[in-house]
Amino acid sequence: MSASPRTPAMDGPELRPVPGGVTAPAGFRSAALHCGIKVAAPDLMLLAGDGPLTAAAIFTTNLVRAAPVLVSGEHLAATAGQARALLINSGCANACTGEDGMRDARQSAAAVAEALGCRAEAVLLASTGVIGVALKMPALLSGIPTAVRQLARDRGDEAAGAIMTTDTVPKQAAVTVDAGSGSFTVGGMAKGAGMIEPHMATMLGVLTTDAGIAAPLLRRALVEAASESFNAITIDGDTSTNDSLFALASAASGVVIDESRYPLFVRALTDVARDLALAIVRDGEGATKVVAVRVRGAAQQEDARAIARTVAGSLLVKTAVHGGDPNWGRILAAAGRAGVAFDPARASVRVGDVLLFERGRPHDDAAPLAAVHLRNTDVDIEVDLGEPDGAEATIWTCDLSADYVRINAEYRT
Amino acid sequence: MSASPRTPAMDGPELRPVPGGVTAPAGFRSAALHCGIKVAAPDLMLLAGDGPLTAAAIFTTNLVRAAPVLVSGEHLAATAGQARALLINSGCANACTGEDGMRDARQSAAAVAEALGCRAEAVLLASTGVIGVALKMPALLSGIPTAVRQLARDRGDEAAGAIMTTDTVPKQAAVTVDAGSGSFTVGGMAKGAGMIEPHMATMLGVLTTDAGIAAPLLRRALVEAASESFNAITIDGDTSTNDSLFALASAASGVVIDESRYPLFVRALTDVARDLALAIVRDGEGATKVVAVRVRGAAQQEDARAIARTVAGSLLVKTAVHGGDPNWGRILAAAGRAGVAFDPARASVRVGDVLLFERGRPHDDAAPLAAVHLRNTDVDIEVDLGEPDGAEATIWTCDLSADYVRINAEYRT
Repeated sequence: MSASPRTPAMDGPELRPVPGGVTAPAGFRSAALHCGIKVAAPDLMLLAGDGPLTAAAIFTTNLVRAAPVLVSGEHLAATAGQARALLINSGCANACTGEDGMRDARQSAAAVAEALGCRAEAVLLASTGVIGVALKMPALLSGIPTAVRQLARDRGDEAAGAIMTTDTVPKQAAVTVDAGSGSFTVGGMAKGAGMIEPHMATMLGVLTTDAGIAAPLLRRALVEAASESFNAITIDGDTSTNDSLFALASAASGVVIDESRYPLFVRALTDVARDLALAIVRDGEGATKVVAVRVRGAAQQEDARAIARTVAGSLLVKTAVHGGDPNWGRILAAAGRAGVAFDPARASVRVGDVLLFERGRPHDDAAPLAAVHLRNTDVDIEVDLGEPDGAEATIWTCDLSADYVRINAEYRT
Repeated sequence: MSASPRTPAMDGPELRPVPGGVTAPAGFRSAALHCGIKVAAPDLMLLAGDGPLTAAAIFTTNLVRAAPVLVSGEHLAATAGQARALLINSGCANACTGEDGMRDARQSAAAVAEALGCRAEAVLLASTGVIGVALKMPALLSGIPTAVRQLARDRGDEAAGAIMTTDTVPKQAAVTVDAGSGSFTVGGMAKGAGMIEPHMATMLGVLTTDAGIAAPLLRRALVEAASESFNAITIDGDTSTNDSLFALASAASGVVIDESRYPLFVRALTDVARDLALAIVRDGEGATKVVAVRVRGAAQQEDARAIARTVAGSLLVKTAVHGGDPNWGRILAAAGRAGVAFDPARASVRVGDVLLFERGRPHDDAAPLAAVHLRNTDVDIEVDLGEPDGAEATIWTCDLSADYVRINAEYRT
């Protein structure tokens, strides 16, 4: 197990990384511009299909949901998973804005629909930025016709840039895969845990493909891919009002995903999603290391995931990793409070390849060796609960640095 | 609700703060010395009753429990809540030490019992310090007879000092209360979240009283008091292998706690426990502020507590408080991910007395006023879920500073 973003080789065709992001698959065009929500930087992104798209989405589990999340959910329900375009603005989350915010979101979708000549329900929305502040609608509405005019296949890089808030780098990825009779491509972009300018983090992810796939199957694939990527990372445990992950399929490759090709499609979708999710972790506020916390030997996968999540979320573990301290005691103690039953006398803890705690007994003399592993930017922690052929799960996180605190303690104004 | 440690005045007699800690109540003596576990500082504390004591304890919920926790639990079960003494060492947690650690703990209790002339099961134990390392038994055993010889009523301050690890101040408190026919005293000491020298935090608390009380009633009172004190604070969400809270009653005051006096006793016990618990928060690593997070208007108290705990645990909230930013968006978003159903459109958020979000609508213009409140060292945050006459709960925490990270990232050796 490694913090490397690539999915391990499995049976089946190779996934070939290709340049670009959301417009790497055929049938998509994008535009990005500055409409006036932010002071100067790009703040509006439009992604459109050349024709109708199949669509699926996963939204924040937070009870407090932003207007674009609510409207996108309504639209996907109304169309049963069809869409034509996705509009994303940065600089304003349109969250906690009440009925006015809902009206603004609906008006944004209607403006895109009018410019593209589709129904309003075919337009999906996402926003990221300051909470509790109204969208600057004149600016946003003025930008939409321009964005539609500028839609182009070669503007994917700009799209990934326009959705950034305090991300330090744009995040995109794409792979092409040979499906026997033809090949298809999966692309994507994401923005991560930039929480300083807005009131909180917003995680946005957009996955595109030129494979043809029915909406229910696309949704199933998205949920599977997310569980091994966007839902398997944690920066600081906070969940935003705006978190959204979209999947859009154009069918432009001519390759149709049926049940027999489904595993291959999920593998490609997961690969791109994991690449983006790990880029978010790597770009976490103040982060200097990516930490893969793997739990194995569990009675069931849910147990492994719960323990991995608790270890990955432990401030004591994250600060120890930051300081280069192979502190297996903190790792074991975090595992012990995850609410999952296991026998500490059968448990083992590894940092890198170094065994520090073996079936109930410390090997603290190996700590200096483990400290060497912690100098890497990609760090591996493993907790083995001792069940032979048990279940396993991995959660990725970053270390916790004094810079995280500095960034998030700064006053907004 | 304020972060002030004092329980609000209620019907009934006044609680009068008195000097001292665990030996403030009659019938207790303590000793503290350096036996050689630490390099130079006091590392051994013995607290003994002049005669038999009633005893109760609450231990860590962590699955990984240190040997002294396991042995103390066995002893309390064997005696049905009777004890004569409590031995605490600092500098070594005797955790993750396997069967050898259990043997060492049992031998420590036997040595105290021999010196005091009681049965081994009447000796309770706690340890705090480095994990995964064996107790220095020759040092510890050599210290026990000396400690027994030095037992004195006026050595409570030294006891509170000897259980410290990286605490910056000793923590003790005591109150006397008039029970009509005579008065009784409750005293206590605690050590807190000093996690740098050991691998992790250990929270230890010891409450003493000269009231007479049956073991089952003492246990009930301890659970009640803890739920409003030690179990209502969070520094960083990590739970140690050694957390222990003891209550010991000598009956030396002649006041017997029956059902009619029980509420008064719980009030006094809670008052001292809360005083100590808030002292732990105030002395949290890198902490500069104590934050009282109160949730009201909930359907039931468990809901209020879950939301208060999530808000108090949010890194984004804790860093915002540290930076003096009245960031109600982060507070609301943390409430929204607590797993409790509520209607955001009915919710309100206050920082100090300043209303920043009222039944679904932001009052962001009031933020500068709320920022003034955040300059205090005692900060109040309130989330009202909007249920009239709803349930409420308060959780206390500290802010998260860059110093916390610095302290916990330092390499142990």
